[in-house]
Parts: sequence; C-alpha cells; structure tokens
Amino acid sequence: MFSAKLHFANAKSDLKADQASLKAEWQNKASGYYVLPDSQDSLLGDLEVFAKKVQAFETIVVVGIGGSSLGAKAAERALRHLPQRNSKQLFFLENGDPIELENVLQKINLQRTLFLIVSKSGGTIETTSIFKLLLSKIGQNAVDSGCADQFVIITDEGSPLDSMALNNQMTRFIIPKNVGGRFSVLSAVGLTPLKLVGYDIAKMLQGAKTVRDGFFASDPLQISAKAAAYAAGKPINTLFAYSNAFEEFVKWYVQLWGESLGKLDKKKARVGFTPIGLIGSVDQHSFLQLIMEGPLDKSVTFLKVGDFRRNLTIPSISLPGLEKNDFVNNASFEKLINAQADATLEAVNSVGAPVDELVIEKLDEFHIGGLFFYYELLTSLVGVKLGVNTYDQPGVELGKTILAKKF
Amino acid sequence: MFSAKLHFANAKSDLKADQASLKAEWQNKASGYYVLPDSQDSLLGDLEVFAKKVQAFETIVVVGIGGSSLGAKAAERALRHLPQRNSKQLFFLENGDPIELENVLQKINLQRTLFLIVSKSGGTIETTSIFKLLLSKIGQNAVDSGCADQFVIITDEGSPLDSMALNNQMTRFIIPKNVGGRFSVLSAVGLTPLKLVGYDIAKMLQGAKTVRDGFFASDPLQISAKAAAYAAGKPINTLFAYSNAFEEFVKWYVQLWGESLGKLDKKKARVGFTPIGLIGSVDQHSFLQLIMEGPLDKSVTFLKVGDFRRNLTIPSISLPGLEKNDFVNNASFEKLINAQADATLEAVNSVGAPVDELVIEKLDEFHIGGLFFYYELLTSLVGVKLGVNTYDQPGVELGKTILAKKF
Repeated sequence: MFSAKLHFANAKSDLKADQASLKAEWQNKASGYYVLPDSQDSLLGDLEVFAKKVQAFETIVVVGIGGSSLGAKAAERALRHLPQRNSKQLFFLENGDPIELENVLQKINLQRTLFLIVSKSGGTIETTSIFKLLLSKIGQNAVDSGCADQFVIITDEGSPLDSMALNNQMTRFIIPKNVGGRFSVLSAVGLTPLKLVGYDIAKMLQGAKTVRDGFFASDPLQISAKAAAYAAGKPINTLFAYSNAFEEFVKWYVQLWGESLGKLDKKKARVGFTPIGLIGSVDQHSFLQLIMEGPLDKSVTFLKVGDFRRNLTIPSISLPGLEKNDFVNNASFEKLINAQADATLEAVNSVGAPVDELVIEKLDEFHIGGLFFYYELLTSLVGVKLGVNTYDQPGVELGKTILAKKF
Repeated sequence: MFSAKLHFANAKSDLKADQASLKAEWQNKASGYYVLPDSQDSLLGDLEVFAKKVQAFETIVVVGIGGSSLGAKAAERALRHLPQRNSKQLFFLENGDPIELENVLQKINLQRTLFLIVSKSGGTIETTSIFKLLLSKIGQNAVDSGCADQFVIITDEGSPLDSMALNNQMTRFIIPKNVGGRFSVLSAVGLTPLKLVGYDIAKMLQGAKTVRDGFFASDPLQISAKAAAYAAGKPINTLFAYSNAFEEFVKWYVQLWGESLGKLDKKKARVGFTPIGLIGSVDQHSFLQLIMEGPLDKSVTFLKVGDFRRNLTIPSISLPGLEKNDFVNNASFEKLINAQADATLEAVNSVGAPVDELVIEKLDEFHIGGLFFYYELLTSLVGVKLGVNTYDQPGVELGKTILAKKF
C-alpha cells in the first residue's frame, strides 16, 4: 500500500477543517477530479469495446501537450515494465520541434497508427498544427475524406474539435468540463492511451479512490499536516524519487504544483512554490550539493518503491584497491538504491531542511493511481490555504496573444 | 555561430577584471577545463585508433553517474539526428535501479558490447556495483580472466580503477586530475563515447575554443555582464531551451550550476542558486504560469536553435471552428517553435523577470561544444563573484558515510 512519514515538526493543522474545505470543492464542483475514481463506469465500458475494435493498430500516437500528455507519459514510464503492457508502440507528439516530429514520423507506419488528438479547449496551437501535418501526411486534406477512423478526439464537449468529431463520425471521448488538464490523468485523457497499451485502468482508479477515501476518513498519509507545513514553508519543493521509473512522474508533479499554486492571490499578491523533480541516486551526483550547502530554501520529499520485484544482486566480487566498496556485496540493487534514499534523507535532515518520505509498495497501476491522487489532494489543500484558484492558469494567455502577432 | 542578448539592464561588470580572474584560474590550474579545447591532440589520435579497433562492437554502454554521464548524454541527445551518427546503440547505466538495469541488459548482446567504466575517483559505489554485475554476467569473476578487452577504464591517473586497468592490460583513458566531473565533458569522459558513436569531436573542441577565446578577447556573448547580474540576482535561474534536443543538456546545466555554486562561502554562509531546466514549448504548458504570476524569484534564459535544417511546414488546412489558428498555416514548424520562444520571452519580460536569450546557429558538434564552454565560463565567473570553490562538492560526503552504515 502507501505509507508516508513526516520528519519535520507538524505544522498546526486541522484535519476536520481541511477535509471540509476539500469536500466543499468536491460538492460545489470547483473541480471534477474528486469524482473521477468512481464515476466512470460508462467510460471504462466504452474503452473496453474500443480497445478491441482498434487492436490491429500497431502504434498509438498521442498528440497533445501539457495536461494532455504529462499524465499518460508519467504512468507509461512508471509501468512499462509490467507484463500486461502490450507490444504497441506509444509516442507523444507535444511541441512543434521539427527534428522530433520527423523522427517520430520516420519510426511509425502511418497506416497502422491510431492518433489520439487531445486538447481540452480544442484549440491548442501545437496540437492543431500537428493534426494538420498528420492529415496531410496520410494523404488527406480534411477529416471527412476517409481517414477519420485513424483519429480519435479527446476534448471538452462542445469544443471545435468535438464538433468536428461529431460531424465526421469520429470516435470521441469527452473530458468533464470542470476537470482541468493537469488534473485529468484519471479521465479519458490519461485512461484512453493507457488502456490501449494494455494497462488495468480500473486498478488505477481503485488506487486513487483508496487514497481519496483515506484522506476523507482519517488521513493516514498526513496530507493535512504536510499541506499546513508546505503552505507556510520553503519557496522550493523538491521531489527526490528513487527509481528511473519516476522520470516522467516528476514532470507531471512539476506541472501540477507549479501551475496550480503559482498565482495572484485574492489580494493580487504573487504566491506559489517552485517544484523540482529529481531522480535518485542520479541527482545525488548533481543537485544534492546545493541542498546540503546552498540556501536553506528547499523542502525535500523522498519517494521510494517498497518492492521493485526484481532479484538482482551485487555479486561478491572484490575489485583490487576498492575493497571499501565491498559492503554492498551480496546485497540487492534494490537495497542499494533504497539505502541511498534513506542515507540521503538523513543527511538532508541533518542540515535542517524539512524532509518527508513517501513509499509505494509496488510500481503498478493501483499505486500509480494512488500517487497521482495523493499529489492532487495535497495541491488542492495548499491552494485552499494560499487562497488561490488552484484550477485556472490565466498567466499563460499573454504569450499566446503575442504569438499571433509574430506571423 | 553563437549570439546572445541580455534584456535586463547590465549590472556593473568589469570585463578586464573578469577576464583576469578566469585567466588566473587557468594559469594557477584551479581547474584544467580551460585548456581542454586545444591541449588534447594526443587523446584525439588515440581515440581515432581505438575507434577503429573496436568498430565491431555493436553497442556502447557507459557505466558512470553524474559528471561521468551527463555531458555525453547531453551531446548525444542534442546531436543524434546528425548523419555522421553511426548505427551503434549507446546506453548509460547510472544508478542501481534494478528495473532499469534489467531492461538494458535485456536489450543488448553482452558479447558484442563495449563497456566504458567511468569514475573520476575510481570508487563510485553505483559504478563499481554495476561493474561487478557486468563482470559476473559475462561469466567472469575478475577482469583478469579474459574479458578485459570488453571493458575500457576512464578515470584519474593512479586511482584504484587505473591500477586495475594497468595490471590487466585494459584500455584506459585518463581524466586530468584538475578537471572535475561536471567540467569533464570535453575530456576523455565525454569524448570517448561520443567518438565511438561517430561524432566529430575535434569540431566540438573547436566550438569550445571559439567561445573561450571570444571571452578572453572581447566577450561578444556578454558573459561578464550576465555573471554580474546573476551573482547579485534572483535565487532561481531557469534555462528555457526551445528544442527537445536539449532535454539532456538542461540536466547537465542543472548539475554544473547547482553543484558548482551551492556552497559555503569563505564566511561559511550558504550561497548558491537553484537551476531549473525547461523545454519549450512543452513547459509553457507546465511551468510558465508560475513564472508569470508566482513570486518574482526567477531569471529566465531562452535558448534557441537558429536553423533546425528541417523543411517541415504546417499545411494550409482550415479546421472548422478553429480558423483562429490558421495564422500559422504555411509557416514552418521551426518558425512556430522559435516564435513561441520570442513571444514567451516578451511575456516574461513584461512581468519584470530578468530575461536573456542565447541562439546557436545549428545543432552540431561545433555549437554544442561552444554551448558547454559558455556555461562553464559563466559558472566559473559567478563562482569567483560568490567567493566559493567552484570545483569541489564537499556536501555530498555525509550521505556516503551514512550509506555504509545501512549495510
């Protein structure tokens, strides 16, 4: 299951009040993510049927950026070692980098590829531009000329993309209106690609439900205490995740935390915290020095995997002159990486940085679903304490307005 | 070539004094990286011969972490689209993540793989543990039993790994003593794997030399002014790089900046700056909101590629309901991504964050070599201004000491 331990003095937190705050957001539908774990039976049924219908496609390409790609990428990277992952290739086309676009187009067989066009608003410039490129590559200049069955639309009901899908009998999956991009991994946005490559998405929702219901019962993961400390705490919040499987998860965290909380508050003051994603033990050789001796402006969360389910042992070989390293001989690599997490936690704790640890038992759908929800709840609660709108992103509009003038 | 533009009022900087400071480091050999661009003819000759000798190996695996891997990874990711990149696979084994280790071991043919064991000290726990695993997998329990020709040692002269290499007639390449890991990409550490997969490493050194000599002549890239502003500036320094090709380069930057400057200064005060690497336009949909409306604690550097050398045009297709996006039709994807950089720069500049831009003409060896050296010079100069030892990392030792007690 999940476990969490805070190594800093608990900030004053009021669990009942915190539960009431988030329950209010749930009930007044400030965000629809609260209900995703147990309100999507119809979508699950549709995806079951759809996955069978499109099983002949050998490649899935998600065309989407930001909240339309980061969640599925995070889950895929964390889970791709599981046996249920089928053999389909999965690519993500996010920005307009021409080298990247050419690279992916060269790797895939266009005729055997299913494209998921994902855009909540339906109007993301990168996504529509790549969509146009794909239409032209497939030899069509419009969706109504025969290639509609290679494109799936995932968008808000009533968006321009949604209308296009309806007018051309394309498959479409709807994102609930009040589920923003960065909170959408457990909606059709994340579940569709993850189902198509073989994951058990129902278990992902079960993990999320377990974490959600735990918070509203007794908060065993101490989300309330952590949110109180973080809302009044350090300006930089690092997540030090001890497995390469979390490489994309930490990017999902960066978006969730940065974009949800970096806001003007009710008094128009600039608030928010800077998220940083690190991978252990790699970044012990990169970022740790700064944590240890630089400004004490960072909290550090250590995320560990309880059981990697791999028996890979460090052989009992003594390299001449390197006998000092023989203390790890006969131990598992799993023990090494987790002991590095523990040792680094102690070292960071000793210099006075607030540290906490989070352990998921296994890298599977249930636990990744729960991990997503843990961070969503934590983000919502800190947002309440900061007095910001956790679910919008007004600051990105100016750049879009300027962009149009560059052409 | 390279160009740079600062959009903030120049901090008071004294170019002559700055040139003298770094020239002093060069001459007193505080770091040996200054001489790497034009002192390695002998290594280049050795690598030319060695590359021919080992050309039958189909896979190269670098076993190394931190400064032993990040530079080569950054160059490989930035350059892998070039036609001179040969067909050899290149993997990096960094930490002890057991899933990652198994994954790479499953992908390679052990007998046809050349392993580069890279450790400056020769005693990095991750590297020696993986080295032991590889020895046992190849069916040997020691390097002296016949598999020595599959392992190349890259380390400091006189280190335990160096002695082992000498005693077993293994190929070895020496890292200059006064070139630290994070400044070692242009030494044997980076040049060896990059040569073996086909890159023109002499051009990489030429690019570095051009940037170095430019600084000591007239500083056309305004490194002096930027260092002055940064040393007295924001606590967080983001690098927003507009190409997926920079995905690993920004991680190299994070190590260089964080580990070099995050230090106790001469008065034992904690100093340093927090580096953050971002990819455009992807992270406009992730981190930009925080820059625009969160605390004004960040500088932002926009890194662009002048010419992607790809002709990929956004087709002139009008999607119904999305005519507002037709302003990009017939433009190249290159124009889109670079216009997004320019538009985002203007937006970020408008809220008062210090911004500057850096353009490299092309993604090739010359320009990546220059880019490495640009950041190394900037780091050294800010280090001088902070009064820290830019080249050590004492803060990481405590964790290593604690680790040994966990076994």
